[in-house]
Parts: sequence; C-alpha cells; structure tokens
Amino acid sequence: MSDLLFPAEPGQRSIARELYGLARDQPLISPHGHVDPALLADDEPFPDPARLIIVPDHYLTRMLLSQGIPPGRLGVPSRDGSPVEADGRAIWRLFAEHWHLFRGTPSRLWLEQSLSSVFGVTTRLSPATADSVYDEVAARLAEPAFRPRALFERFNIEVLATTESPLDDLAAHAKLAADGWGGRVISTFRPDDVVDMEFEGWASRVGQLGELTGEDTGTYKGYLAALRSRREAFIAAGATSSDHGHPTARTLCLSPVEAASLFARGLRGEADAADAETFRAHMLVEFARMSIEDGLVMQLHPGAVRNHNRWLHAAHGRDVGGDLPQATEYLHALTPLLDAYGNDPRLRVVVYTLDEYTFSRELAPIAGGYAAIYLGAPWWFLDSPEVLRRFREAVTESAGFYNTAGFVDDTRAFCSIPVRHDVARRVDAGFLARLVAEHRLPFDEAAETIVDLAYRLPKRVFRLGDAA
Amino acid sequence: MSDLLFPAEPGQRSIARELYGLARDQPLISPHGHVDPALLADDEPFPDPARLIIVPDHYLTRMLLSQGIPPGRLGVPSRDGSPVEADGRAIWRLFAEHWHLFRGTPSRLWLEQSLSSVFGVTTRLSPATADSVYDEVAARLAEPAFRPRALFERFNIEVLATTESPLDDLAAHAKLAADGWGGRVISTFRPDDVVDMEFEGWASRVGQLGELTGEDTGTYKGYLAALRSRREAFIAAGATSSDHGHPTARTLCLSPVEAASLFARGLRGEADAADAETFRAHMLVEFARMSIEDGLVMQLHPGAVRNHNRWLHAAHGRDVGGDLPQATEYLHALTPLLDAYGNDPRLRVVVYTLDEYTFSRELAPIAGGYAAIYLGAPWWFLDSPEVLRRFREAVTESAGFYNTAGFVDDTRAFCSIPVRHDVARRVDAGFLARLVAEHRLPFDEAAETIVDLAYRLPKRVFRLGDAA
Amino acid sequence: MSDLLFPAEPGQRSIARELYGLARDQPLISPHGHVDPALLADDEPFPDPARLIIVPDHYLTRMLLSQGIPPGRLGVPSRDGSPVEADGRAIWRLFAEHWHLFRGTPSRLWLEQSLSSVFGVTTRLSPATADSVYDEVAARLAEPAFRPRALFERFNIEVLATTESPLDDLAAHAKLAADGWGGRVISTFRPDDVVDMEFEGWASRVGQLGELTGEDTGTYKGYLAALRSRREAFIAAGATSSDHGHPTARTLCLSPVEAASLFARGLRGEADAADAETFRAHMLVEFARMSIEDGLVMQLHPGAVRNHNRWLHAAHGRDVGGDLPQATEYLHALTPLLDAYGNDPRLRVVVYTLDEYTFSRELAPIAGGYAAIYLGAPWWFLDSPEVLRRFREAVTESAGFYNTAGFVDDTRAFCSIPVRHDVARRVDAGFLARLVAEHRLPFDEAAETIVDLAYRLPKRVFRLGDAA
Repeated sequence: MSDLLFPAEPGQRSIARELYGLARDQPLISPHGHVDPALLADDEPFPDPARLIIVPDHYLTRMLLSQGIPPGRLGVPSRDGSPVEADGRAIWRLFAEHWHLFRGTPSRLWLEQSLSSVFGVTTRLSPATADSVYDEVAARLAEPAFRPRALFERFNIEVLATTESPLDDLAAHAKLAADGWGGRVISTFRPDDVVDMEFEGWASRVGQLGELTGEDTGTYKGYLAALRSRREAFIAAGATSSDHGHPTARTLCLSPVEAASLFARGLRGEADAADAETFRAHMLVEFARMSIEDGLVMQLHPGAVRNHNRWLHAAHGRDVGGDLPQATEYLHALTPLLDAYGNDPRLRVVVYTLDEYTFSRELAPIAGGYAAIYLGAPWWFLDSPEVLRRFREAVTESAGFYNTAGFVDDTRAFCSIPVRHDVARRVDAGFLARLVAEHRLPFDEAAETIVDLAYRLPKRVFRLGDAA
Repeated sequence: MSDLLFPAEPGQRSIARELYGLARDQPLISPHGHVDPALLADDEPFPDPARLIIVPDHYLTRMLLSQGIPPGRLGVPSRDGSPVEADGRAIWRLFAEHWHLFRGTPSRLWLEQSLSSVFGVTTRLSPATADSVYDEVAARLAEPAFRPRALFERFNIEVLATTESPLDDLAAHAKLAADGWGGRVISTFRPDDVVDMEFEGWASRVGQLGELTGEDTGTYKGYLAALRSRREAFIAAGATSSDHGHPTARTLCLSPVEAASLFARGLRGEADAADAETFRAHMLVEFARMSIEDGLVMQLHPGAVRNHNRWLHAAHGRDVGGDLPQATEYLHALTPLLDAYGNDPRLRVVVYTLDEYTFSRELAPIAGGYAAIYLGAPWWFLDSPEVLRRFREAVTESAGFYNTAGFVDDTRAFCSIPVRHDVARRVDAGFLARLVAEHRLPFDEAAETIVDLAYRLPKRVFRLGDAA
Repeated sequence: MSDLLFPAEPGQRSIARELYGLARDQPLISPHGHVDPALLADDEPFPDPARLIIVPDHYLTRMLLSQGIPPGRLGVPSRDGSPVEADGRAIWRLFAEHWHLFRGTPSRLWLEQSLSSVFGVTTRLSPATADSVYDEVAARLAEPAFRPRALFERFNIEVLATTESPLDDLAAHAKLAADGWGGRVISTFRPDDVVDMEFEGWASRVGQLGELTGEDTGTYKGYLAALRSRREAFIAAGATSSDHGHPTARTLCLSPVEAASLFARGLRGEADAADAETFRAHMLVEFARMSIEDGLVMQLHPGAVRNHNRWLHAAHGRDVGGDLPQATEYLHALTPLLDAYGNDPRLRVVVYTLDEYTFSRELAPIAGGYAAIYLGAPWWFLDSPEVLRRFREAVTESAGFYNTAGFVDDTRAFCSIPVRHDVARRVDAGFLARLVAEHRLPFDEAAETIVDLAYRLPKRVFRLGDAA
C-alpha cells in the first residue's frame, strides 16, 4: 500500500495506513459531478490521450495560461477564430514541457495517480517521456477494458450523479435506464439557467421550460409549476438532489406578489443586476419549500465570479478556467432561509465554499447549530490535500464530522474520479490518525468514522439509500 | 502523565511533556467566566448528572439540535410550552446515543476529561454504558467532596471571576465575603444590559440603575455617575475588570453634548439600530476613560449575533446555543479608542474574537503596536485545541507571547474549568516544544514562558496581584 | 549545518537538510528593499550597535512600545521635542531587558542569527550579557571587514535593489556606478509621493518632477511624460522594477480626459479622499501601460494604513512602527487592470499582501489564471517562518511554485539580509521536504525547485538577467 499523503511521523503514519485500509475499498459515492451521461449511455471508446485528459481540464489549461501559453495551443476550441492545435500528440508534448508548473498541485497528483492506477502507466511524465506516455495511454484506450462502462465497474462506483438543466430532456439517462446495463447513474436538478436573469437568453429559456412542461411560464405561478414538474421528472431519473451555483449565498423571502412582479419585470427585459440577485435569492427559498415537499437535497455552490477572464471568455467561451472565487458571506446571506426552514429536519442544504476563510467563523457554527445545514467538501480551487486537511482542522471542532456531507468529486474528468476520492480518504485518514496519536479519539471510533466519511455519510446525507 | 494533545513526534512530545510538567500544577487563574456565584455562596450539592452537565451546556444541546433533536428532549427549559424532558436519566441516555457526534470536538475532550479527572469515572461513554456512567457520577455528586467549595479547592483555583450586570446587588459575593470561607471569587462589571439600547427593557433598566445608585439616570450625566458608582461597588466586591459584549468592535468619541442627546433619544424610545450602535461605540470610549481612572481592565467580546436561531430563541430563550459568529473588523473599529488612549499604559483592553481570520491581519499587529491592547484567548467557538494552536502560530510572530492575556475559560460549567485550563496548557506546551525542537527558542526560555502563560501573565494582565 | 527551522520529524528533517544544502550557497537576489544606497556608495563604517541594529528597526521599537516603552528611550529621533536617549549603550541595555518579548518572533531569529553569522557573536543576549554583546559587536564594527561593501561581498549578494522616489537624483547610484567597485546595486522606481494626492506636499512634488525633467507637469500629459522620463533614468541606473505602495489594490481605467481633469483638480487642491483613491487606481493602469513599453516589472504593495498610531506619528514621524494592515480585497480591485492587460505576457505585476486571508481565495487563483500576475513573498508583518510556511501551503495548490516570485527581504536592515533569505530557504526546504516525505514530489524535482525558489525564479521574474 502506498504511503501517499500520509503524515511522515512513523507512529501517525502507521495509524493512518490502518484507517485508510478500512476506507480504501469502500464503493464510491459520487453525489455531485459533471460527467456527461452520454459518455456512459453511449459507451464509446475515449478519444486520444490529449483530448481525454488535457483539452477538457481547465485546471491544466489555466496553469499554462498563467505562464503565457494560450489555451488554443492546448487544443481548447475557440469561438473567435483564434488558432487551435488539432494534433493530440503536439498538445501532449507542449503540456509535458510545462509539467514542472504542476509541482505541489492536486492536478499533478490526480494525473500521476490516474496514469498509474487507471492506465497502468508508471513512466514519469517529462518532456523526454511525453511520447512514450502518450503511446502507452493511447494503447490502453483502444482496449475494451478502457471503455467508460468497464471503467465505471472497475472504479467500484456505486452511484454517479451527473448534473443537468431543467431544459435537458434526460435522454441519456433514459437510454441508460432502458438498456439494462445496471450502473447507477442519476441526474441532479440544476436550474441556474432558468433562474438567473443574468444568464444569456434567460427569458427564452423560461419559454422553453413552458413548452417542455406544458405550463404557462409567462406567469410566476406557471413558472413554479413548471419547475415542480421538471423536479418530478428528475426524481424519476434518479435525482436525489438539486444544485444551485450562485454568485453569492444570499437568500430572501419575497411575498408571492413581489416575486410575481419581479418575475414579470425580468421577462419584460427590465430587470437590472440587483433584481437578478434578488430573484436568485428568493428562488433559493422557493426551492427549499419544494425540497421539503419532494425530498431533493439542495446543494448551494456560491462564490464564483464566472468568466472573470474576459479575453478567455471571448476567445474560448465558458468553463475553460476563467472563473475566480470571491469573498463569500454566509451568515447574513443565509438568515432568511434559516429563519424560515433552518430547523426543519426535512430540509437538507449542503453548503459549499470557495472561501476557506469562512470555515471556522461561519460555516462550521451554522452547520453545528441548524438541523438543515450540512457542509460540503472543499470545492474547486480548494479541492486539494492541503485544504481537505485544513477543512477538517477548521470545522470539526464546531460541527463535528457528522454535519459534513462526505467527499464530492465535482468533476467532469471521469478517469480522475477514483483518485480524487482516494486523496480525500487518505487525508481524512491522516487527520483521524493525528486525533488517535494525540489521544483525542480511540482507534475504534476513528475506524468507524473513516468508513462513515468515505461511504455511509454521503450516502445518507444525499438520500442515496440506506447505508447499513 | 497522559500525552493527551501532545504532538506525536517523539522528540517534540518529550519536550512538550517536560514543559507541561512545569505548568500543570500552577494555580488556576480564571479572570473571566460565567459561573453563578450563588453556587459557591450556597455550596449546595449539584443536581443530577444531566442537569449538571448536559442541560446548561449549549455546546452539547446545539450539536444535537444540528441533527434534529430539539433541546426540550435534553431538558432545556422552554418558554413557549413545548415539551421538556424532566427525567435526568432519560436525558443522559438520549445524549449518550448521540455521543459520536462529538468526535473531534472540544466538548468531547472536556466531558471525558472531567468525568475521569473530576469524578474518577473512566468507563467510556456510549449508549451501552450510559446508565452506569450516570450512576457513577450521581454517586459522586452525593458525596461532600463533590460540593462546589470542595471542588474549588481541589481544582486549585486561585481566583475565579464571575460576571454580573451593574443591576446585580452582588449579594452572593457579599455572602461569600462574609462567611469567611476564603476562596477568592470576584465579580466582573458587565454593563451591556444598561448600555445596549437594543437590549429588551433597556430604558427601564436604566431607571433601575438610578434607583440602585441614587443618581438621576434620566440625564446622561447622572447615568455616567451611576455607572461610576456601580464600578466602585464592583471593585469593592473584588472586580478587577469589566466586560463588554458588543455585536461589533466599533468605538466612537461623541462630544458630551452629542452623547447626552443620543442618550435622551434612547430613553424616549426613539433610537434606531444605528443610534444604538453609535451609543455602544461611544460608551466603550467612555468606559476606557473610567478604566484609566479606576483601574478596571476592559474586556471586549465583539462579533456574536445573538439569538440568530429565531425558533430556538422563541422556544427556549437566550444563551441556549442560538448565537452565531459574524465577520468582525477591528482596525477601523478600534481607531477612535486607539487614537484617544491606545498609547496610555494605564489603560488595558483585552480584545477577544470569534473570527480567527483577524489573528495575523489585525489583532496581532494592533496588540504588537499599542500599549493598551492585549489579546484574549480564543473564545467560544474557537475555544478548542486546534484554534488554540493556530492562535499561537498566527499571533506570536507579530505580538509575541507577552501581548497575550493568558487562558480564559469563559465558562458556566464549573466542573469543566480544570480541564479547559489543562487543554490550553497542553497546547501551549506543544507549540513551545515545536519552537524548541526547531531551534527557535532555548528550552530554559520556553520553560519560563509556559509558566508565564499558565499563571503569571493572566495574573498580571488582569491586575489580580503580583505574580512573583 | 544547523537544523534551525527544519521540521522535527527525523525523516523530513533529513530531506530538508539535503534540500537546504542545495540552496544555502546560492547568491542572494534582493529585488526589493530599502537599504540606503549611500551606505554602499560611501562605504563608511557603521555606527554603534544600537544605532545600527535597534534605532532604525521599527519591528524592535514597536514591540517595546506595545509594552509601554516609548521609542525615544530607544533612541528614535523625535520631532516634537520629546526626550531621545543618545547613549547607544543605554539603548542597548534597555532593549536587552525586554529581549524576552521577542520570543517566538522573527525579529529574535534575525537578530540572533545576524549576531552569530555576521558578527560571530554567540553570547546569548540577556540583561546580564547586554554589555558584553554590545562590546563584541562594537569591536567588529571597527574592523574594515565589517564595512558595508565588504559585507556585501561576504553576503554573496548578486544584486541589491534599493527604492527611490522619481524625485531622487540617483546620485548615490551614479557614484556607485562611477567608482568601479562592481557590486550590483540598482534602483527601484517608487512614484507614490508624486502619485498619491494625499501625500503631504503632493502638488509641489509634482512641480519638482517638472523641474527635474523639463516637462510641463502642470498638465496631465506633461506629468505622464515626466514619469516616463524618470523611468528611463531609473532604468539607466539599473532599475528593472517599479513599486507601488497603495492603501488598497484598486485599479481603474479613466479616459485621458477624465484623468486629466482629475489631475487638474488635484493640482488646484480640490481633490478629496475619493478623488485621490481614484487617481491612484487609475495610475496603476497607466503604469501598467508604461511597463509594457519599457519592461519595468510592477510591484504592488497594498493594504497598509500608514501612520495609524497618531501619537507616534506626531512624536516621531513616518516609518517608525505606526503602520497597520487592513483587510485587502484583490479580485474586484484588480479587475480593470486584468481586463486591460492581465493576459499580456509583456506585463509582469508582482502582488504582495499584508492580509494572508486572501492567499487561497484570491491571490493564488488570480496568479494561477493570469499571465501577468506573480505572487510576492509574504511581506512585513507576514515576513516570518510561520507565514512563509502557510504561504506555500495555501498558494501552491492553485498557483504552483512558478507563479510566485521568490523571496524578497524588503528590508532597510542591511546586516539582516542574509539571515532573512536563509530563513526563507529553510522554510521552503521544510515545505518541499514534506511533499517528498508524503510522496507527493520526487526528491530530484524538489531539488530543482528549491534552487529555483532561492535563485533562478526571482532573477527571472524580476528580469535581472538569465538564470542558467
């Protein structure tokens, strides 16, 4: 067993190894992520190594951008006509030349571990070995054992949640359900593009929502009914949670009349930025009400400034590494929601953050004092060994382990799923090992806790079935 | 000697043990806390284990609330007629069923260590052992050696400060002084309920203050005179400090005319929230002036949003776990006070925080640059091993050890006082051991420092007598 | 080799020693600091130990001030007629009496290490040894080997940047260049006093700028031309960077007409605080434009509230320990600059902070996503072992090592330069050793990285020549 990420001190390391051993082979619960369900519905072979691993991973392309290498040279599609490298091998070589930039980053860890544990490639990546690593991976990708479903099974994924807009017809999930393969791939209801008036084309999307559901989304009442109807459809497609990616954590209870009037203003194209923020805030409370009725667990992902890098957005579009975190206030922002439903155990809100400087001040005390709130795993820029450790160190004392929701990989990089969970299990084992070594927790309780964190807790919190 | 909380690395651990050994038996200085002085004045036996340990401890009841267990089921008195469990054993059992929630929390540490070191109960708490632990503790509580005064002596408490409103008649302290027992139990002057215009019934409290002192508190001048008069009474009851629990750290110097006019507006019931904040801010400077005259050390506890959990407040009242921390700004907030008296060594202000993300940015630089400012120990949500460690790591480099005020237990849980101090001594020993192990401080200086932190420094900073 | 600052765990320590061994003897690159160039131009012997070490070091005098010792007693010149101790030995003794205040601080480390490694004084400082330490240092200072240039050579300084106002005639640098000594001492262009309308005497300084350059600085156009002309002169004096010390990180793109009008308002003495902030913000973008033309690397040092301690400023003037950090927002503040030039690899902006609670939330993601941004070393209050470690732990995962700019000593204390760099090298070695010990980085890559951080990276980022 590798000692990757375990504390160096031999006593703690040995406890960490033992704890990790209990978690390592637990099935993977992936309650939130961005894998394309068509990947598994179609089960086609993956493309070449560069297109599989580099082109779609904005963690990788943004690091090279930060050193002056434009994403087009790494094959990221452009929408402004700027040149895009088409040759997978050339992309791979350019990337390998800059591999040293990733020292000390989680990307390095994920890629290296994926290469070895998924593809069996143990050659160290470097400019000199770029071609041979590329060839080894390419050879694997041609084998049936490296098709998506085969990997899904090998990865021991018990459940994988994808994320779709209410406008999605869920055809990929229907295909998966119909063909009897048996892997549990469920959807997540993510309504941002029909909730956020600042989303390009919001009003026309609201129109589509009406068409899709047969509700009159020209009225606020019909809009809510349409959302309820899509939630039912998502639940039928296995969804157990919704997801809400807002710029802030702000919540607000408008009266039905106020909400309807604001909604109408938005449809008329007269809403300004403050209106949009008000409507998003209000809709979080509206969704909380729906959650209490239909049982979907809410996930709240606030704090990203989308498309901050304007040139990058203009040249390459959304989700290519141009988003940035901003300071995020939770306490006052969540107060209206907490006042309304914070003590209702039927409601469950998993709160994430990009701002670790809220861990001990706001997030842990809130989760440790309200029945409805759970803390999501460190996310995105924080989805890394050092922060996973700091998360436990900062939140456990106020919130304990059992107000956290377990690890969430939140990735579109299918092949990195096992290593991401493995990293979290290793870091949790290291943290628990310290508690044991410092006589703060008996070993047997740490042993129960590591399995809870790895498996039982996310399953229970996300209502994915009884975790015995 | 137990190695609880000492770093795992054997070299550091051995230094930590040695340092801790020097601090362990130092008398306890408890310059700030919320023990009821009647407890010691009356010296009655404690009630049953649940009523002693669980019912009044909002750290415990809020954790269960966060998992959907309402505080009434744990015996917390209600004021809205909601049901309250009356049977101590039933409360204890319910609590034991949820004991796993406290893994990794200071509550677990405090309770476990109190059970063993105060009550001699070493049976591990669990659902299965709930009854036997209950019975063992109950048996102890019936013995004379477990009455409050006997414990006070066994705990080696040199001085214990309680906290009272200026409206308190200090009868318990008078009784203690009169009966010749000899334990040093002193009061602390906490004027929030006659200073904060938003405090329910403020104006009528100001009236009571007038009656109690014979001053005309219908005028601002009489109000100040009444406060001065109560401070004298508190000083006569042993007080060496005042305490101020404000929502923010804001300070302000109004002119006497402005202050008088604002005070009058408040009495007429015409003050709004901004007025109340202005008056609180101004009164901190007013109290600083009084401190320079009468020598009371000021304590400033800002940053709590009181009664944030509205349902909890409605059902169970104040101080039952419904308060939450908010982001707290110190630099600009304290500027008026610092401009006026920050360099005056006669003034001493001990500043606390619920927002650890001010440690290195604001608190340590301020304390390291103004003669009047000392840093209070991490408080409330931060009163825990991990934060005690992060506090030293974050503030020592700018403020040193000698601009900190030593450990403060700030507790109403009398039986937990020794273990809380013990935890702080252990964490400080671990931190100093690291400095020694990394050749940053010679052992003999670390040895002097650990005793200073445990005993001499709080005694000196809080003006509790010469610490030889 | 001393194990100072290395982690205690023997495995990690041994890796750290080995890594440090590779960095220890690398030449010192000091791309930003405040040494007086006349020191090296004149090469006079240093004054007495107190005047060399204590009087000018506000880290030292402010710590004593925080315990009620006024700076005049430590020889800090006063401008209000308050008494100033003139006897170096008396200053030294008073300081030694308070030496315990510095336990755990970087000042202690720097002074102790400077005494031993620069002056060969290994007697431990204490009240009892004050005189003998003083005499030993004084004896050394009389020797030719302890003149500034001799020390510069012994310190193995490859390049030392001083900092001057555009109004400086650079005579000291000219003298250095003329006399053929050969040590590389370069200037840095720091235009705050002609940019910040709130700087005392700004308008008359702008007038001097016109006289010095022959440009008509009564107009905005002439003002820009004058700044360009001074930048050329600085570049001729070896400068490769500019430095900007603003209260905030705010940037702004005014149109030329708006800028000219604001500038004129300032000259007329009609600008208020908001105008001054707007102009500073705008000028950062203006300087970015100039940097793209002339290649000077920009340094941005935001977040200090200057002269916060009003009494200290009144009595002793600027730069004597009365500045304090404030919370600093980077993301929205830098957006106008990033929108304009953030992806331009010709621009290079090294961003510093006094607010470590931006490391993982703002600074690392920005530096890891924009080609123009590099992270400067922890600065001033944060220039210490614990924060240097936390910096690596917090920023590496998003920004890697290669978006950081290497260590910057930023000091006016010439004799402390080697130990400051040594501390940074030791801390980086400890951090890299942990990555190696936890199997996150192979030793050979850590070995390359430590030398990059110590030498090659600062040389490259600050455009100080090719680092082979």
